[in-house]
Amino acid sequence: MKIKFADRMGHFRASDIREILKVTADPEIISFAGGLPAPELFPIEELKTVTAEVLERCGREALQYSTTEGYLPLREKIAARTNAKFGTALEGGDILVMSGSQQALDYAGKVFLDDGDAVICESPTYLGAISAFLGYSPRFVEVATDDDGMDPRDLERVLRSEPRARIIYVIPDFQNPTGRTWSVERREAFMDVVRQFDVVVVEDNPYGELRFQGPIFPALKSMDTRGQVILQGTFSKVFCPGMRIAWIAASPEIMEKFVFVKQAGDLHTSTISQREIDAYLEAYDIEEHVEKLVALYRERCFVMLEAMEREFPPSVRFVRPDGGLFTWVELPEGINARDLLSRCLKEKVAFVPGGAFYPNGGHENTLRLNFSNMPPERIRDGIGLMGKVLRSYSL
Amino acid sequence: MKIKFADRMGHFRASDIREILKVTADPEIISFAGGLPAPELFPIEELKTVTAEVLERCGREALQYSTTEGYLPLREKIAARTNAKFGTALEGGDILVMSGSQQALDYAGKVFLDDGDAVICESPTYLGAISAFLGYSPRFVEVATDDDGMDPRDLERVLRSEPRARIIYVIPDFQNPTGRTWSVERREAFMDVVRQFDVVVVEDNPYGELRFQGPIFPALKSMDTRGQVILQGTFSKVFCPGMRIAWIAASPEIMEKFVFVKQAGDLHTSTISQREIDAYLEAYDIEEHVEKLVALYRERCFVMLEAMEREFPPSVRFVRPDGGLFTWVELPEGINARDLLSRCLKEKVAFVPGGAFYPNGGHENTLRLNFSNMPPERIRDGIGLMGKVLRSYSL
Repeated sequence: MKIKFADRMGHFRASDIREILKVTADPEIISFAGGLPAPELFPIEELKTVTAEVLERCGREALQYSTTEGYLPLREKIAARTNAKFGTALEGGDILVMSGSQQALDYAGKVFLDDGDAVICESPTYLGAISAFLGYSPRFVEVATDDDGMDPRDLERVLRSEPRARIIYVIPDFQNPTGRTWSVERREAFMDVVRQFDVVVVEDNPYGELRFQGPIFPALKSMDTRGQVILQGTFSKVFCPGMRIAWIAASPEIMEKFVFVKQAGDLHTSTISQREIDAYLEAYDIEEHVEKLVALYRERCFVMLEAMEREFPPSVRFVRPDGGLFTWVELPEGINARDLLSRCLKEKVAFVPGGAFYPNGGHENTLRLNFSNMPPERIRDGIGLMGKVLRSYSL
Repeated sequence: MKIKFADRMGHFRASDIREILKVTADPEIISFAGGLPAPELFPIEELKTVTAEVLERCGREALQYSTTEGYLPLREKIAARTNAKFGTALEGGDILVMSGSQQALDYAGKVFLDDGDAVICESPTYLGAISAFLGYSPRFVEVATDDDGMDPRDLERVLRSEPRARIIYVIPDFQNPTGRTWSVERREAFMDVVRQFDVVVVEDNPYGELRFQGPIFPALKSMDTRGQVILQGTFSKVFCPGMRIAWIAASPEIMEKFVFVKQAGDLHTSTISQREIDAYLEAYDIEEHVEKLVALYRERCFVMLEAMEREFPPSVRFVRPDGGLFTWVELPEGINARDLLSRCLKEKVAFVPGGAFYPNGGHENTLRLNFSNMPPERIRDGIGLMGKVLRSYSL
């Protein structure tokens, strides 16, 4: 039988990253490839307690269908935490609970993108966002991005030349893949530019709470005077990813469209998981938990940076992140990170080549390293092995 | 600010059914409107046990990211149960776990439908499928449907005249909204027709296990010789809907596309909920649980049918379902079910007017009644009140 698939399916292909991640299932591999939180800090005992409590107190409601928008007490807690951390002024009604941030990206594509519309993004940008938006057949326009964030002048130039710009997708805090954070001045300059255009900003903030030192910077959403910014957050990095609980904050006009799409897309997010996280936030101090995560990731990050300084040839450059899960490596022009990967896999070390994070290709001399999922001694060993392979290129 | 939404968003509007369902949140209302399972049979105690056990035994894996395809032991159990009940020959690898059946419908639209393609469906058909597919801007072509199912001759006529037919969407068992079940002969005749065309069949089977008497009929998927049928099942009706765990079974070629779409759409379904259901299926006899559900719904259905026979004017016709959650009422031509609803709401009784289940409109003299969510005495009272209102039309 000859099956006719939709035209959009032509954009999807078997991802080499999925293949890399399959390799890393081998426990012998030192993997800097995924973006996995440290499972040793998952709040397992606390979850046992709150699950029993939720099933006891309101099992019938927790296991039944529920509203598309999400569980209001949880939405209120999300709004209050976000306001306290990122300077926003959200209420529970501004929050829509999602089945993971990836769903929020997919639905943003569905709400805003017609074939051929432009998605404006950092260069490089998050691979998962590229695949989510690809289903809606857009063009990707990369804006020049440096250590302080997206370049506002280049953004203005792009927006003037792209009347079909519909979404500006950015990760201002501890970006995936680079680990970079936008300065406060850049955030303000960015908002000054976007305010002149009728374009929506998707501000993806999965890592913002995981800051190793200094104050958290205000979200773009806190500077949003026109209902232009959709802020995305998630419990995947501060609680656990297995439950798939995330959220967006958006203006009522935008929220209505997301609710339509979610109603038609999966009815609503897991009732019981929402109730459990709500009960956890009632019963425990999640800030204490976040502090533990920060301490662990800070240590792992520092171990990785120190090892790279010691083991990598001086012509290899890397980012010093202030938080999050990732750092970013730039190899000398001649070295292809895919080639480096195949040599490193022989030494049982894995990472993600950076080319995949550029929607329009190029930059094959870059790579992403994750530091959250491996203990310090394996980080040291892995970076040591990578250094040995790098030196074999006789840089 | 003037926001440009995607053209597809023009298909979505505030649904009057959501408004009806909001009204029914009032506990005084006797609601035949939703499609809610009976919460008094949710396996709350069993879930407490298996959740504690899963977190104890494999908490770190259960709370971590996992594969898009789903948890293999659960997929294997789903395949085995489906084979035993519906005559299929599935293996674990044929199953893709979904975040609810609504997601399976949305992704079917994404995988198969370009703007203007045709979705072929029963008349009437499931409202949630209409809204899921609407996001992909198709045309809906309704095929004549009677008490024995879709009319194969009308289907053949439609398929010959619709070269852009991409999906035939059907619910052969205890259909939503009508409660009707296709005869075995009709299933065979249907498959004989579709085998002549390169079109995919989405066989939605959320209620098939809830048969009140007699043997379960074989699934269309069990007669699928060409990898043409996608079978959809769910734990929402036999376990609980709040967890949002469903699945599809499809040929490898189709499965690959669904995996791409799911990877880009929400990465994967809740790891812990999959592990919990798997542990429940290990530790308990779900067939015993299904028997309890069947006994309860059978009683409620019979109470409703008996009350309708007694209370409704003889010109009002209704379906006698062999299972599931719904029955279907046809009023004399002159009576509009929306008008009837507004009169019934004054008596604190709610149902869903049937017009919404016809994608191309009409049939405003029909309505859907749910019998699974109300105890027998409230069913008797509610039907009594409906009968009183109906008699006020002086039929």
